[in-house]
Order: sequence, then structure tokens, then C-alpha cells
Amino acid sequence: MNQANEGVVGPGRGRRVYKKHSKERVRCVHCVVLVLFAGCAFGSGLATAADRAELWGVYEIRLPGPQAGNPFTEVQLWGDFVQGYERLEIPGFYDGEGRYLIRFMPPRPGVWRWRTRSNVESLHERTGEVEVGPPAPGNHGPVRVAYRYHFAYADGTPFRPVGTTVYAWLHQSEALQLQTLETLSRSPFNKIRFCVFPKRYAWNTNEPDLYPFEGRPGAFDFARFNPRFFQRLEERLWQLQRLGIEADVILFHPYDEGHWGFDRMTPMEDDRYIRYVVARLSAFRNVWWSLANEFDFMTMKRDEDWERMGQLVSRLDPYGHLTSIHNGKRLFPQTRSWISHASIQNGSAVETASAAVLYRDAFEKPVVYDEIKYEGNLPRRWGNLTAEELVFRFWNATVAGTYATHGETYLSPDEVIWWSKGGILRGESPPRLAFLRQVLETAPAGGIEPVDKWQNPEYGGQPPEYYLVYLGKSAPRTWAFRLPRPPQGIGAPPREGWSYAVEILDTWNMTVTPVPGTFTVTAHGAYFFGDREGRTVELPGRPYLALRIRRIWNE
Amino acid sequence: MNQANEGVVGPGRGRRVYKKHSKERVRCVHCVVLVLFAGCAFGSGLATAADRAELWGVYEIRLPGPQAGNPFTEVQLWGDFVQGYERLEIPGFYDGEGRYLIRFMPPRPGVWRWRTRSNVESLHERTGEVEVGPPAPGNHGPVRVAYRYHFAYADGTPFRPVGTTVYAWLHQSEALQLQTLETLSRSPFNKIRFCVFPKRYAWNTNEPDLYPFEGRPGAFDFARFNPRFFQRLEERLWQLQRLGIEADVILFHPYDEGHWGFDRMTPMEDDRYIRYVVARLSAFRNVWWSLANEFDFMTMKRDEDWERMGQLVSRLDPYGHLTSIHNGKRLFPQTRSWISHASIQNGSAVETASAAVLYRDAFEKPVVYDEIKYEGNLPRRWGNLTAEELVFRFWNATVAGTYATHGETYLSPDEVIWWSKGGILRGESPPRLAFLRQVLETAPAGGIEPVDKWQNPEYGGQPPEYYLVYLGKSAPRTWAFRLPRPPQGIGAPPREGWSYAVEILDTWNMTVTPVPGTFTVTAHGAYFFGDREGRTVELPGRPYLALRIRRIWNE
Repeated sequence: MNQANEGVVGPGRGRRVYKKHSKERVRCVHCVVLVLFAGCAFGSGLATAADRAELWGVYEIRLPGPQAGNPFTEVQLWGDFVQGYERLEIPGFYDGEGRYLIRFMPPRPGVWRWRTRSNVESLHERTGEVEVGPPAPGNHGPVRVAYRYHFAYADGTPFRPVGTTVYAWLHQSEALQLQTLETLSRSPFNKIRFCVFPKRYAWNTNEPDLYPFEGRPGAFDFARFNPRFFQRLEERLWQLQRLGIEADVILFHPYDEGHWGFDRMTPMEDDRYIRYVVARLSAFRNVWWSLANEFDFMTMKRDEDWERMGQLVSRLDPYGHLTSIHNGKRLFPQTRSWISHASIQNGSAVETASAAVLYRDAFEKPVVYDEIKYEGNLPRRWGNLTAEELVFRFWNATVAGTYATHGETYLSPDEVIWWSKGGILRGESPPRLAFLRQVLETAPAGGIEPVDKWQNPEYGGQPPEYYLVYLGKSAPRTWAFRLPRPPQGIGAPPREGWSYAVEILDTWNMTVTPVPGTFTVTAHGAYFFGDREGRTVELPGRPYLALRIRRIWNE
Repeated sequence: MNQANEGVVGPGRGRRVYKKHSKERVRCVHCVVLVLFAGCAFGSGLATAADRAELWGVYEIRLPGPQAGNPFTEVQLWGDFVQGYERLEIPGFYDGEGRYLIRFMPPRPGVWRWRTRSNVESLHERTGEVEVGPPAPGNHGPVRVAYRYHFAYADGTPFRPVGTTVYAWLHQSEALQLQTLETLSRSPFNKIRFCVFPKRYAWNTNEPDLYPFEGRPGAFDFARFNPRFFQRLEERLWQLQRLGIEADVILFHPYDEGHWGFDRMTPMEDDRYIRYVVARLSAFRNVWWSLANEFDFMTMKRDEDWERMGQLVSRLDPYGHLTSIHNGKRLFPQTRSWISHASIQNGSAVETASAAVLYRDAFEKPVVYDEIKYEGNLPRRWGNLTAEELVFRFWNATVAGTYATHGETYLSPDEVIWWSKGGILRGESPPRLAFLRQVLETAPAGGIEPVDKWQNPEYGGQPPEYYLVYLGKSAPRTWAFRLPRPPQGIGAPPREGWSYAVEILDTWNMTVTPVPGTFTVTAHGAYFFGDREGRTVELPGRPYLALRIRRIWNE
């Protein structure tokens, strides 16, 4: 945890020494603290010398506390962070060995004063302050929804998800995990979906070396977390963060079926698990919450359970990290307020751009197709796309104003398949997705929007400045220059006489070829603009071409 | 209104005679009535001899009342209908010429006792009772949502919408309206979408002879309704009802742009209009409410307005008629509780069955594609589908477990286009839609459900008993018999050794050809069942074929 700024508070500063595990020490202190807050905020005599932290970094307060009894269930700890009128309640947690932590991700620069609340005297009313300075280079803050259907970091830098899945990488050997990180560092992926709980499924039958709970298969104590497991998870979050990769942390999944029982804990156990994970991880700026993978395949839970848990995450997480819930066959109602973006499994929906756009209309949120089948050769229909097909689907998603997620399922004698365990990438899609990512990252900040979604779905862009036209599996030799008149609310139409430059993108061969000369627009009927001289673009007659069309300003 | 059972109450039965229009007569009587209700219900001395009515018919109470002042705004009238523990509040309305009406659609047989409430003494505390008998032949009651994604009449008879649009037929000449009814009587359509307000649009520039409000263009009094307009509308509802046609009544639309100003009334005026229309029409069992056509093109209203009006309809309508809101380019949030089914404009979504299914997943309600472009030859891209294309889209919608709506836009020198004004049908799709309707009406009660929506969208049905496979524009010569293993929750898979009969439906030529012999299923890999002997079906090599596959029980 040496990446965090630490504010260690030594023992003996509490007014009473904690004696022994007993019911008496558990008492309500909230009322007292609330009164203090309503009064003059913090007594100055309790403040420590200011620590320093980085905007959107992690400031960690360590406090010694009781080890007896069950600190996970018996000790309550909160840190209240105040700056001006703003007050954030940060949940603390027990990290084992008598160590209690409160992790704070400063959302604003300047001085933040903090004070703890606990039902344990030695953890109660500890105070301090931290001076928050500017973010280090490369730290853009957490990712948020931007422009309704897109994403941006907190500092405004656009974020274009090009994700992958390595569902169970945390549960593989240390060597394999490090190899996965090494592969990621050379990959185009800036988001990874993975599970907290181990996975039991075809090609996934190995036991992990660490579990999130104390115990062993058949005898887990769901009331006692295993800090070592979470410490390693956090080490991985830091490593991903250094690589610029967002961690789409999957809290529940159905690939257990009672083997460990993590899929069938009681609501109280589920909620306690959520509280612990949110307390531990929410200060990491690169965390996203994925409430579940294939939620509807978890037959022991009902929609009411997911709703309760979604609201719980939303209430506990002080920073409002992106939160989603991923489906098997049935979608969760994606319009719920705690769902920041639709995380969809549906390979079919990205087979055409015209279908990919439909969920946008339905949910009015960003749509990330987080499972569109995988590049590979598995004897399963979800695991044997060609690389060409996977890249094709990404581009359909792109011009429809949505995002897609990669996964790779090439069989291997050692059953190490990237999709779930990580290791190395064997497929041909990643370099093409790197090419796509480059296109996305040089597109306008507002993101690629569908330009004429129900008529000409191959057009994405930001009219009238920028268009991306995806020609898919057709292999034309010419393309008549034309731009659709965008519907109301989507940018503006080009003006008579404006000039455009066209580039031919070969999305498979990863080349960008400028078309000589420029195109000057004039109205062509009610729905289009064409070139004033009727010019067309010569094309190489191959599939998977796109056209990038940009307005020329210097004329 | 002679189709309604009438309970005419003569003058002079009130304990006070109404004197003159004055503020004093407007007083709060609700509290008194509520106390009576909380006590012993109705005093028996006030009951009239029982009238008779038909289940789901219209029982109409006529009361004489004041004509002075503005009865539309100044007189409040309600009828409370009680049977056992059930109590329905039925809004009354002013019908002009001193006539006040309360229309009741009995939702259950037996005796219903009623009592009025009004701020006018002569209309207050009138009582009576009506004995409700069985429905007449052909009266199945109002249509409801059934099996989550489908529809059925209140008596359980499935209703499969095969609708059309004649948006402005109410605003044409009497002769044209009667011709439209005549055409409808020979058509396959069992639902018609039309507007209360007149329409001003290309090919729609004629003024109607009646308006819903008193006044004239430029000088309407939005506080005074025109009963003659509504009386004629009601005559049309009766006529449609006799033809077995549901009336999808569109309350607002954007095709006005201030010419009449019905698109830009104040919220108070909008709400008064809704109250009046709901009071007048909700006793008609064949009424559906369409809050708007192309709601998002009405730039003077915000989503909050639609939400308020949707809730108002839902609160006022005692019978819970089907209620929807139809979009232009942007969908209203279709998961709102007052929306019974998604009424969608999107031609693109029904170009494939795989796209058509997506809104079902998103909304978990019935999906009716109420505008998928029109069969015709208009110089507009929404109005020039071939008949083949329109029928093709209906079939895509069908196997995806959704419904579509017809419209016809053939140019005519007199500008009488079916789509909006009615008259005669010129297109080739209606007989093919009659064929489709027959297929739908002989399908299982649970409706056509997608069987394997994201993999084999051409399969609809109710596995393991019934399958409908639509082959669309492909023109195969053979079809390998195979049935997908349905996903969890969608019926059940066939069992080894079960037998099936296959028919070839030529959806364009409207023929049904049984395939000789039967097919006996056996598992074919992880995802399908095939014929035990590998039999295939010979096909005529034409497009627009479907296969109807039914389990044979008598073996």
C-alpha cells in the first residue's frame, strides 16, 4: 500500500483504553457526533499537523484497534471529511492484525479536515487534516458519464472504453497474474472486467490460493473477511492504475453453484460483503462497480435483492463510481437511478449498427456491450468468433454511439484462456482494437454519435464537423461522397460550400489513406448533402473499410 | 348514443332546485359523501328501480343541470359505483344543452349501486342501481396486457393487434368517414390509430367541419368543449366497436404548429382537456389511450408535462385502459408505470427479427411497432415501402414476439391518402396481413415468443408445442428440420422421440402447404434438436416463406 499517502495515528490518543470484547463498548455515538457537526465542526485542539495527498489519490488513515471478538462485524468506523460546506462520510474497515483503515480519495484540492466516529472508544473522535495538492501526471481522476452516452475522467479528458475480460485472473497463480499484467501493458485495453469471487466453470476448475473469506470450501465464515485476499486485489488495482486501466470489479456471479457458496449467501451476508468491498476499494479512482455478471443466472437472488444491493453500493460509495449490472439472457431494468451505464451482454445487437443503437434510445445512458461473444475456437457458440467478426462488431458499436468489450477464448492445453484466466493474447483482434482506440481518442470530445440512426446507421460522428462511416462487410470500389442531414438535436447540418477532407481507414489492415483533394457540400435532395461536383471516393474493394470525414477550417 | 343502456333521471328529484349561476352553489360536498360511504353506504330510500346493462357495455346516467356560466369549468360531477367492497369513481361531464352524463362500463356482473357527487345541488346525491348481465356475443371486454408481452380481452380471449393508422379521419367529410368505415369492415385491421385533434401537415391542409373546442381558428375557447364534435367521435367509437376494432385514441400530436393552437395549450388547459376526454370516452371498451403521436416533436412540452398527463390519465380512467406514448426520434422512458405497452416508431428495428426483439428486453412490456414506415409511393423516405417490405417487417416483428402497425401512403390526385384521411385501400399488403392475423389467431394463447432470440431470431413460438420460423428474404430449396433448445424460462425443450408436423406458409401468396409425414426429434449437439432420420423440408425456393411446426399429440 505504499502508493497511498498515509496518515498513521499512533495508539494511546483515545481518551479511554479499549479493554475487552464486550457488548458494552458497542454504543450509539452518532447523535453526539452529529451535534458536534451542527455546532462548530471540529475542536481545533484535536487536529494533527496536516498531511499531504494528491487530488484523486488515496489518503489512508491507519488506526490501531481491537483484535478480539469479530472486528469485521462488531466494530463500526467512519471518517467524516470536511472542506467548506462539503462533508463526505468515508467508511472505514478492519484490515486484520488490529489494524483499522479509512481510505479517502480527495475529490477537490485544498485542506480537508477529518474526524472519526466509532463504537470503539480508541477509534472514536480521532481527528486530523490533509492538504490536497494537484494530481500527478497521468492522474485524470475517476471516470464519469459525459455527454449522456459517453465517458470522461473527472478532469474532463474523454475516456473511450476499449475493454477486455479476464474474469478470474485474481484466482490464478502469482506468476500468471504478473504475466497477465505484462500482457495488458502491451495491449490496447483500458478497462478490464474481473470477479472478486473465484470462478467455477468449464475450463475453470482450479482452486485459488486465497479466498475473500476465512475458511475453506465447505466451511467458509462469511462473517470474517480475509484481508490478505483483499490486499492482493488492491495491489492489482494499483498495478492496473499505473497502466491506465479501469477495473470493472464484478461483485457477484453465478459461476459457483454452491461449490464455495459465495453465490448463495444471505442478504445480510451479501450486504456485509458489499460494505466491506466498498469501504476497501472505493478510494481507488480506477474502480467501477459491476454488481454482477449474468445476474439473471443467479437463481438464488431476486430483482429485489439486486435493487437493494445496487442502492446500497450507491449509498455507501462516497465518490459515485460508475455502477452497472450485466445480464445473461434477461436485462435488469437499466433505467434505475443507481445504474450509471448499461453493461450489456448481447452479441446479436452489435451484428449491425442499426441494432446496436436501439438500447441507447431505450435507456438514455451510455451503452457498453460488455459481452459480444469472444474471439476464439471454443466448442461453444459464444466462444468462436473470428478476429474479423469481433473487430467488425466493435466498429458497429462505435458508429452507433456505443462501446464494446473484447474477450478471447482460444483453447490451450493448460486451459489458460485469456477470457477468464489471463496469460497471453493469441488473437488477431487486439492490434485492430488499438487502431480503433486511436481513432476514438482523436475524435471530438463529445464522442461518436449516431448521425441518422434509423436510416443510415453506418454514419457516426459529430455533425457538421466530423463523420465516421463504417462500410462493414461490403467491399465497394467507390463511395459517393454524401453526408446525411442530421435529425434535430444531433449537431447541425453542413452549410452550402463547406469543404471536407476524407481519409480511408482500413480497419483490418490498420492503414489511414488520405483521399486527394477536398469535397465541397451542396444539398442533395431532402435528406443528404453531396459533393458540388458529384465526386466519389475510390476504394480498394476490400471489406472492413471506414471513412473519416472532417471539415476543413482553413478555407 | 342509442347503443348505451341509459338511466335517465328526470328533473325535480333533488331536494333543492338549482336557482342561478352563482359562486354560492359551488361548495365542498366531498366530505359529506365520504362520511356516507364510510357509514352504511346508500340510504335505501334513494335507490331507483334497477336498470339493466351489459358487462363491459356502457350504462349512461343523464341528469339535467345548469346551462348558465361555463358548465365545463364550473360544474363538478362524479358517480360513485359500488358493488360489495368495490367502489369506482366515474367522472361525469357536460354534454351541452343542460345535459350532464355519467358513463359507466360495468367491469363485473351483478347489481351496482350508484350515487352522484356534485357541487351543484340538482346533480348531487342522485342515486340508483343497475343490474349487470352477461356480455352480448362478440363482447369480450376491454383489451389488457397478457403474458407480459401480449394482449387479451378481459374475458381471456387473446387479442393480436394488426393495426392501421388513419390519423385524421375524424376531420374529413362525413362521406369519407363512412367510406373509411366501409373499407375497415372488409380489412384485416383490428386496431386503428387516430387523433382527436385535426392534423395540419403535407397532404393534410383541409379544415375540419367540427373542432373539439368552441370557436374558430385563431379564436378557440379552450375552456369550452364542443359536444357535437365528441358526439360524432363517440358514434365512430361505436361503429368501430361493432367492427371489432380497437380505437387507439391519440390525445396530442405536433401537426398543428400553432395553426389551431391545440399543441400549445397551457398545462391547465391540457389537463382539463384530458379530464373531459377521459370522462367521455373511458366507458368505451375499445378505447386505448395514446398520449401523443411523436411526442418529442412537440417542442412546447417537456418530459415533465407528459409524465404529469400520463399519470392524470391513469388516475382518472376507472378501467385502466391500455396507455402508451409514441415517439418521433427519441423514445419516452417506456418503463414508467402508467405506460402499459411500448408504442414505438422505428422502421429500422423491424428490418430484422434480431433487432425487433431488443426493445422487449429493454422494457419488459408488450412492444407494438406503431410506425414502421408505410406502404406507398410518397416522395418521403417514410412513405414508400413496397407491400412486400411492409409484410416482411410484420413477420419479423411477429417471430420476435412483438406487433406491428400498417399504414398506407399511395399518392392520389385528391390527396386522400389512407394513412391520414382514410377512404379506400390501394395497397397489396392488407390481404397478406389478413393471412398473418389468421396465423396469429390460431397460435397458442400465450402468444408468439422468441425462442432463441440472440442466436436464431427466425424462430418464434411456444416451445415445445408450437414454432413459427420465418425465412424472410432468403429463398431456400430445402430446410433442415431443427428446433432450438429454448433458453431457461422460455417453455421447455422437446423430448426425445416427440413428433412434429410441419406446414409451409407462403406469407406472400397466402398458402398453407402441409409437409407429408412427421418429424421425430432427437438432440443435435448442444443447441438444437433435429429429425431422427435427418429429414429436411423441401421448399419452393421463393422468398417470404415461413414454417409452422406443431407437436402431434395423438401418437
